[in-house]
Amino acid sequence: MRRVAIVGAAMTKFGEDWERGFRDLIAEAGVKAIDDANMSGKEIDAIYGGTMAAGRLIGQEHITALIADYMGLNPIPATRVEAACASGGVALRTGYLAVGSGLHDIVVVGGVEKMTDVPVGDAAVALGGAGDQEWELFMGATFPALYAFIARRHMHEFGTTEEQMAMVAVKNHSNASKNPYAHFQNVISVRDVMKSKKVASPLKLYDCSPITDGAAALILAPLEKARKYTDTPIEIIASSQASDTLALHHRKSLTTLNATVEAARKAYNMAGVKPNDIDVCEVHDCFTIAEIIAYEDLGFVKKGKGGRAIEDGETALDGRIPVNTSGGLKGCGHPVGATGVKQAVEITWQLRGEAKSRQVKGAEIGLTHNVGGSGATCVVSIMRRAD
Amino acid sequence: MRRVAIVGAAMTKFGEDWERGFRDLIAEAGVKAIDDANMSGKEIDAIYGGTMAAGRLIGQEHITALIADYMGLNPIPATRVEAACASGGVALRTGYLAVGSGLHDIVVVGGVEKMTDVPVGDAAVALGGAGDQEWELFMGATFPALYAFIARRHMHEFGTTEEQMAMVAVKNHSNASKNPYAHFQNVISVRDVMKSKKVASPLKLYDCSPITDGAAALILAPLEKARKYTDTPIEIIASSQASDTLALHHRKSLTTLNATVEAARKAYNMAGVKPNDIDVCEVHDCFTIAEIIAYEDLGFVKKGKGGRAIEDGETALDGRIPVNTSGGLKGCGHPVGATGVKQAVEITWQLRGEAKSRQVKGAEIGLTHNVGGSGATCVVSIMRRAD
Repeated sequence: MRRVAIVGAAMTKFGEDWERGFRDLIAEAGVKAIDDANMSGKEIDAIYGGTMAAGRLIGQEHITALIADYMGLNPIPATRVEAACASGGVALRTGYLAVGSGLHDIVVVGGVEKMTDVPVGDAAVALGGAGDQEWELFMGATFPALYAFIARRHMHEFGTTEEQMAMVAVKNHSNASKNPYAHFQNVISVRDVMKSKKVASPLKLYDCSPITDGAAALILAPLEKARKYTDTPIEIIASSQASDTLALHHRKSLTTLNATVEAARKAYNMAGVKPNDIDVCEVHDCFTIAEIIAYEDLGFVKKGKGGRAIEDGETALDGRIPVNTSGGLKGCGHPVGATGVKQAVEITWQLRGEAKSRQVKGAEIGLTHNVGGSGATCVVSIMRRAD
Repeated sequence: MRRVAIVGAAMTKFGEDWERGFRDLIAEAGVKAIDDANMSGKEIDAIYGGTMAAGRLIGQEHITALIADYMGLNPIPATRVEAACASGGVALRTGYLAVGSGLHDIVVVGGVEKMTDVPVGDAAVALGGAGDQEWELFMGATFPALYAFIARRHMHEFGTTEEQMAMVAVKNHSNASKNPYAHFQNVISVRDVMKSKKVASPLKLYDCSPITDGAAALILAPLEKARKYTDTPIEIIASSQASDTLALHHRKSLTTLNATVEAARKAYNMAGVKPNDIDVCEVHDCFTIAEIIAYEDLGFVKKGKGGRAIEDGETALDGRIPVNTSGGLKGCGHPVGATGVKQAVEITWQLRGEAKSRQVKGAEIGLTHNVGGSGATCVVSIMRRAD
């Protein structure tokens, strides 16, 4: 495998974007990423795009052909990948492998979702297709319900509290308020979360990531050629993907995502780093409990100690290991297919030292953690500032 | 790149399968392919799956995680790719690259679509998402309409006749009648096609491929290890993918698919073969006119001579270059995501000499041609019987 670097990164402002369509979002993110890499576009050999449910949300499949077309990049190969909420992470890994294997030199990795063109109930049902449609969604188990099971069990096994979950939302809104691209710009309190409407007990509205429109894009290149395009290449030193049962009820444990554990183990091995070496991290906080479990499954704390970690401020912007400096899915928003790519955009900015008021000082190694469904897919990637 | 071989191939009976669901189809094709490769399943390192519109057709995304789960293959990485009707071909190419690059050793490539769980009108609208939803489908241009434009223009430019198009359907039904896995088992006449109901003039019902349920699977391995699993490895000597504008009206010509021309040019170069060297071929005959244009774009005949080629029997089972021995999309059926994989299954059987009454004698080199939408994606792969 050749060494691979991120040489361009961009995203749209995340939010409820009533003024623009899917095509506007991908064009903006793609063109900005190409600009960021000081390219004209002619250098690009292939596109890998992540989208979850464009068929149901905008009536359009064949999404990456559309992206190639609207970016003026025909006839290069354009491949869509999909793994529910991990679609962006899988696109990143697939693009990384395409460059690493020597198949392509310059690759665009894109992620996008336009979610507000349908009523929110329809979006929730579309998202339910990330889990087991026949045995979960059809029975009424939407995603808040599935993660409520997980949360309830984590509380039972480890004494995790609703207040600790609330603290995840508070931290992520605080980080989002420092990120001009974030969906939410408002800071909130534990009290705000606790008194917000119950969605699926113990999860309340502010424990849930929102329905968001947005796109993000990266340009990848072989590390040896990266300085042609940027002074600050960010090397991808590992990217690993694992799978688990689609349905939650088939798992041995509700409180650990085996796909995260597997993907993280391989990624740490591949990168030759340990959890303690990670300076900054974006994890998949589709619900606040998911972030707490990610701390544990990624090895930042021991199993069961995730609630304590947020309470102790370990993952705050000035903590031992800052998590979700972008605001995460909760604060920055969760345009499903874009999320895994946006995580890598944030880590790129952090490792370049461009994250302004949310900059983690001296960050050299970063990690992204992108989960599909209730954990049937997980992608963990590790990046390092190239010397 | 390492050399890559197909060591296992299988498919379900294609047709309207009211008795079984998506999960049954993938499990049957997957398990049969693993059996065909004399494996237990433990050897498998990754899955690449092609499905177009499972979100709309069965309410389920995250399809390849589902496949890994139902095949008992967790926690290996499971990646869905989508490029409309070329989803299966893109899955094949992505799996080929994964093995060729050395990333994985043994890979399952699967393709599947369960189309008859929704009313046929809903399926047609879902399929319309393969083209430009905003500027074609929304205006009423479903796929028969788009290919009717193409057919009309081909008739105008080159004198192609409705009878010549009908002959494609007659040939493909004849081939399908020799294929126990084909959707249609009945032979038809030119007269049957000509008097069948108009769908979008000049296309009639029998010019159109059907709505089909089905799945197909391949097992890929490095060529150097292939004989561990099979006595008759089939080497993939090229696989190339290209893109074009999503909307038909953006193309310079209606009568050539530039993505086919590009993908074929690269595939022939990669394989070091010429169109004349191809002994047997599966092309994307979603409509009869598409097969005629494929003859031309793949270089089997000069531009405009496709109608003449079918009339002269050049592509018949005993012709100069037998095309769609499986029955093609028209006769064997078109479960969208499965089609590109099924094409490779048929070529594998042909090159192994296992195609029984439809066997092309002495076939050594075969080609598959899989198109997405009206030509925004094309994948061309070339296979050879390994010595």
